[in-house]
Amino acid sequence: MQLDNLVEIKNIEKQAWEALERSIIYYKGLPVGTVAAYDVSVEALNYDQCFIRDFISSALIFLMKGRTDIVRNFLEVTLKLQPKEYQLDAYKPGRGLMPASFKVVSANNQEYLEADFGEHAIARVTPVDCCLWWVILLRAYSVATKDFCLAYRPEFQQGIRLIMELCLATRFDMYPTILVPDGACMIDRRMGIYGHPLEIQVLFYAALRAAHEMLIPQGNEDIIAAIDNRLPLLCGHIRQHYWIDMHRLNAIYRFKGEEYGKTATNLFNIYADSVPYYHLDSWLPKKGGYLVGNVGPSQLDTRFFSLGNLMAIISDLATEEQSQAIMNLIEERWEDLVGDMPMKICFPALENEEYRIVTGCDPKNIPWSYHNSGSWPVLMWMFAAAAMKTNRTHLAQKAFATAQSRLWEDEWPEYYDGKTGRLIGKQARKYQTWTIAGFLLTKELINNPTHLPLISFEELPPELVSRACEFELNNFDSILFG
Amino acid sequence: MQLDNLVEIKNIEKQAWEALERSIIYYKGLPVGTVAAYDVSVEALNYDQCFIRDFISSALIFLMKGRTDIVRNFLEVTLKLQPKEYQLDAYKPGRGLMPASFKVVSANNQEYLEADFGEHAIARVTPVDCCLWWVILLRAYSVATKDFCLAYRPEFQQGIRLIMELCLATRFDMYPTILVPDGACMIDRRMGIYGHPLEIQVLFYAALRAAHEMLIPQGNEDIIAAIDNRLPLLCGHIRQHYWIDMHRLNAIYRFKGEEYGKTATNLFNIYADSVPYYHLDSWLPKKGGYLVGNVGPSQLDTRFFSLGNLMAIISDLATEEQSQAIMNLIEERWEDLVGDMPMKICFPALENEEYRIVTGCDPKNIPWSYHNSGSWPVLMWMFAAAAMKTNRTHLAQKAFATAQSRLWEDEWPEYYDGKTGRLIGKQARKYQTWTIAGFLLTKELINNPTHLPLISFEELPPELVSRACEFELNNFDSILFG
Repeated sequence: MQLDNLVEIKNIEKQAWEALERSIIYYKGLPVGTVAAYDVSVEALNYDQCFIRDFISSALIFLMKGRTDIVRNFLEVTLKLQPKEYQLDAYKPGRGLMPASFKVVSANNQEYLEADFGEHAIARVTPVDCCLWWVILLRAYSVATKDFCLAYRPEFQQGIRLIMELCLATRFDMYPTILVPDGACMIDRRMGIYGHPLEIQVLFYAALRAAHEMLIPQGNEDIIAAIDNRLPLLCGHIRQHYWIDMHRLNAIYRFKGEEYGKTATNLFNIYADSVPYYHLDSWLPKKGGYLVGNVGPSQLDTRFFSLGNLMAIISDLATEEQSQAIMNLIEERWEDLVGDMPMKICFPALENEEYRIVTGCDPKNIPWSYHNSGSWPVLMWMFAAAAMKTNRTHLAQKAFATAQSRLWEDEWPEYYDGKTGRLIGKQARKYQTWTIAGFLLTKELINNPTHLPLISFEELPPELVSRACEFELNNFDSILFG
Repeated sequence: MQLDNLVEIKNIEKQAWEALERSIIYYKGLPVGTVAAYDVSVEALNYDQCFIRDFISSALIFLMKGRTDIVRNFLEVTLKLQPKEYQLDAYKPGRGLMPASFKVVSANNQEYLEADFGEHAIARVTPVDCCLWWVILLRAYSVATKDFCLAYRPEFQQGIRLIMELCLATRFDMYPTILVPDGACMIDRRMGIYGHPLEIQVLFYAALRAAHEMLIPQGNEDIIAAIDNRLPLLCGHIRQHYWIDMHRLNAIYRFKGEEYGKTATNLFNIYADSVPYYHLDSWLPKKGGYLVGNVGPSQLDTRFFSLGNLMAIISDLATEEQSQAIMNLIEERWEDLVGDMPMKICFPALENEEYRIVTGCDPKNIPWSYHNSGSWPVLMWMFAAAAMKTNRTHLAQKAFATAQSRLWEDEWPEYYDGKTGRLIGKQARKYQTWTIAGFLLTKELINNPTHLPLISFEELPPELVSRACEFELNNFDSILFG
């Protein structure tokens, strides 16, 4: 079917809105969220729940369209699900954590909410990203409504504070990044993203920025000081140690191993043989670069992860120059990263022995499927936002045009498989809510870029930047370690 | 050279003691520790420092021989190195952490101590084990001297408390185990031991037990309650989820994947294909079993790690039945685990693609070398202690006899390489202090098993056990998740 007229395009949008409406969950008569998928052809499993991370896309389009009530209700009910006390029982979720999902359960003519913090999830993964997204969404609500009253309410101040305390707590390493187990974010299965994966660090940065805007200084002096301190260090750390382009690849390629002491240049003791330099040498465009997926002891995961890179542009974690370089890379490697469905969750896929060892033989994450380099339409809105922020409107339009008719024809699947995303995901649900919301959101961002400030951040205030953020790559070490 | 008479054996012991004496470090005239190695044939690098984890072996033999002063001095100076304040700077070591090592530096006719918390180490790994070993050693000192006065001093109470707070802090997962980055223990390089590696969990358990004995209840009610709560949960978790024998392997082999919800039996979503069942099927003796190296989402690392298994026996983390099964396994697989030098740090080695992917191409950890299945004489004392605790004196004697003459002839190397440990380690230092101390300690433990209580623990007190620890494997889930 050819979509060659406006009527049909309008029709697709209308149907998307109808599907989104159908997905709304009500609790005690109020709209409080959206179900993950409304696919009547298969058993619901956990797709009848409202996932925090999935709801972000719905929430943003609702905010842009003036449907702020549902977002406020969502923020209020999820805040009540957050554990407020220290838990002595180590099998209970920690203080400050937000659930992965919740659902409305009815019993004895009463409705109540049942939260899942990962204890019912496959493999018991912890949804670390959810508390970070929650803070980001609360700030988006405040920006959209031009009303910080909700955020200033004591219980919301406490909610933000608990999340900050959880994330800023003293831990076992000496980096500004946060340590998480494997599968703690959108990729919620084992995929070699344990340790300090990019996605979590970027969301952490955005949440710190958002919390900083919303916390009332009085009574929060300690937390605000900790945020002020962490922001430039985290920013500097990611911009320095996660960045890769031809210049940096050349440096890594010639790294010496086993350096001991303060003067080491190969801080993480990366062995060049572990980096696929022959692949990167031909893949990296001259003026392109990106943030790598993970950095740890003798570990430099050079896979490209879309969410982390796009949110780094949107949240201003990447420098202006780095943001442009990431967009250059996506444009030059369009076939690999966008192909026939925007866009790849990561690239390239883990294959053969690497797939077996790193995923633990996960049959859902076979090469070029699902998290292992599948294509996720929901990521399109982040691509559009990043494109608008870097003045690449044409790229956002191009991606949207690619997706538009297919998504509707294919009934809004959760994800696509194959090298260029031409196969509907092997186990994809249809009428997946964040696919639908992501589509509507992309269109809205392209047509009304004035909505961008809901999710984007300006440059870090100069008084913070001056500390560590505006550094020359070459003298960074002397700033932080000198 | 044949060692066929007592005079020569005495001579070896005498020379070992002389070498140990030479390794002692003095600070302001007082003995405070031992250097890692006293090998005059090579450059010192960081081998001129006193490593916390290395000193444990020296400390224990000093305590047994009445040289308690050096251990007290060590505990006092290291306590002063522990950060006591919250650090706003994320590049500074966290409150409560103990350094990996320290050294005495002289400047302007003044001596001072320089600590390293991993910031100078290769790959910047965090020495999480060191604060745990410190608590275990403080308790050994108290038991050996029959004097808890040192532990009761306010600054020591604070030191213990800060370590407990660091380890018991709310984190991002819902298990009683603690999450650490790769290389956070004796294996201080990338070896696929990120997440919840056995060694850290066992030392955590022993440190909780030790702290519980030493903390003055008044003023520490909250920490003691947290320890009381954590101990049985941690104990139950390890005994259940880390244990493997033929019975358990059979269950894992028939696991269903992708189970969702409270009733899942395959909690961690392990795919049987990721477990080397054909190797384990022939390797596991009928009456043998062990604790696996790591458990995480879709991850069951079935490598045998000696330190974790032996310390689990010593600290009473393993049940009596499990302890006997571990010793059965070592006896039946003597060639693999002890061979010509007690004993393998882990088994089997990572080889081929697995070596490349998991270690990041680490040239020091090539298969059957160093951490990747090398043989470490220091582990002999833990084997002896475990053997004495399980009434297998003959096994301790057999191991000791294997090592005795070789260690002396080879000038006390740090480690051995090869499948049965017949090659002196490729980059091994000679006169490595913990090799020497481990040798003396093994002999002492065999001859005077009355020293065992310095390091070992009795059964968990019944009032704690009753909570979760004495479970049937089959109804464990109903206790903890039911």
